[in-house]
Amino acid sequence: MQIVIIGSGNVAYHMAKAFTLRGISLAQIFGRNEKELNKISEELHIPYSAEQLEDADLYIICVSDNSVEEVSKIIRKKDCLVAHTSGSLPKEILIGDYRKSSFYPLQTFSKSKELEYEKIPFFIEAESEEDKKTLFEVASKISENVMESNHEKRKYIHLTAVFACNFVNHLFSRAKEISDSQTIPFEYFLPLIDETVKKIYEIEPKMAQTGPAVRNDKRVLQLHERLLQGESLEIYKTMNHSIQKMYEL
Amino acid sequence: MQIVIIGSGNVAYHMAKAFTLRGISLAQIFGRNEKELNKISEELHIPYSAEQLEDADLYIICVSDNSVEEVSKIIRKKDCLVAHTSGSLPKEILIGDYRKSSFYPLQTFSKSKELEYEKIPFFIEAESEEDKKTLFEVASKISENVMESNHEKRKYIHLTAVFACNFVNHLFSRAKEISDSQTIPFEYFLPLIDETVKKIYEIEPKMAQTGPAVRNDKRVLQLHERLLQGESLEIYKTMNHSIQKMYEL
Repeated sequence: MQIVIIGSGNVAYHMAKAFTLRGISLAQIFGRNEKELNKISEELHIPYSAEQLEDADLYIICVSDNSVEEVSKIIRKKDCLVAHTSGSLPKEILIGDYRKSSFYPLQTFSKSKELEYEKIPFFIEAESEEDKKTLFEVASKISENVMESNHEKRKYIHLTAVFACNFVNHLFSRAKEISDSQTIPFEYFLPLIDETVKKIYEIEPKMAQTGPAVRNDKRVLQLHERLLQGESLEIYKTMNHSIQKMYEL
Repeated sequence: MQIVIIGSGNVAYHMAKAFTLRGISLAQIFGRNEKELNKISEELHIPYSAEQLEDADLYIICVSDNSVEEVSKIIRKKDCLVAHTSGSLPKEILIGDYRKSSFYPLQTFSKSKELEYEKIPFFIEAESEEDKKTLFEVASKISENVMESNHEKRKYIHLTAVFACNFVNHLFSRAKEISDSQTIPFEYFLPLIDETVKKIYEIEPKMAQTGPAVRNDKRVLQLHERLLQGESLEIYKTMNHSIQKMYEL
């Protein structure tokens, strides 16, 4: 089976790398950004083009949600399977006479960070059982954890991931801003952060909650509010309000 | 040196356990809750009392911030060192004729969860160099990471910890609420959560940000807002606003 990856961003890079590491050679990596394509091509020894899309059986579109529809139109072939990798888009966003599908890896991708691909859950959706089987087999070459998911469920998976990953990372950014402002090394907080995550492997997060809000410690809450301003203060108030609502305080 | 721990909650338990594991026998664990004291005493083989405070050189008060002042008054001895374990209280909150100090472990403590005590940063403060030295030696028996910190700095350390730990855990609770509502197993998200944390060991959190807000993907942001309500919707809006402010979007 000939596979082409479309895109040159974080997801495209890691998808290409995951296939390459599993010994699956890709027919092409195609995109607009020649500089990035060239870098990926050199590292992974995959042919690239920014002009001529290679003929393939499966095209995996790894571009940002905003561009999926536009990019999908460049595939003029009919007898092929096209998948996007978005958590929030339906497969019907794809415009073309080919078979449509979704191939969603639940992970956060940064180019400079190595990943254990076999642990990434993949959620697949296709028009026919045969296409599902194809995607299942392809994803299973990369990951031990491949599941079917329709668009409705995938939207909620993506939304959950925004809370559990994107927002968590932003809290780290805001936390570092606070510690930086007092020249406290952020490294001090890494054991605490590690433990916060290790805990939820053993205890429900709701049972593991600690801190001034769940203790309803008004003195500390007021003290902290006086130390904060701007967006961090807004986050502080919103999160505490939500904690106190959850525990009916 | 005779050490007494006051309290029977999560911090008291782990502090007692950390000392015991390092072969430092405690003179007593003292508190109000006889049932909890009895449990800790049986597990760690430490004498306990809810009535008669043992004579000691160092008392470590491990009770919630609200109770530190009140509890500190029960120590009538003069020639001794008393430390509280709060991140947000000054050592002057302690009421008595003894020498006052602070002994703050930067970690999240749940009784049912084992901890690697040697990695916990301890922040100490005392009135004299001699007392600092004592606390430094005591903390160093437990941890590899002992530092001095005055009250001003400690407040910010605690505040940073609230963002990096308490709020992060609450995001996990809200994330699980969303995935539970669609019967999506929360376990799917654990590799993503692990990776979110592993990333910040290698990349500044600000550089590692991913997700619809930092991409300014208005379509996805609007879609997600329609899927949410109540506190989760408030969190969604506040976090995205803060992300977009940070990246000037």
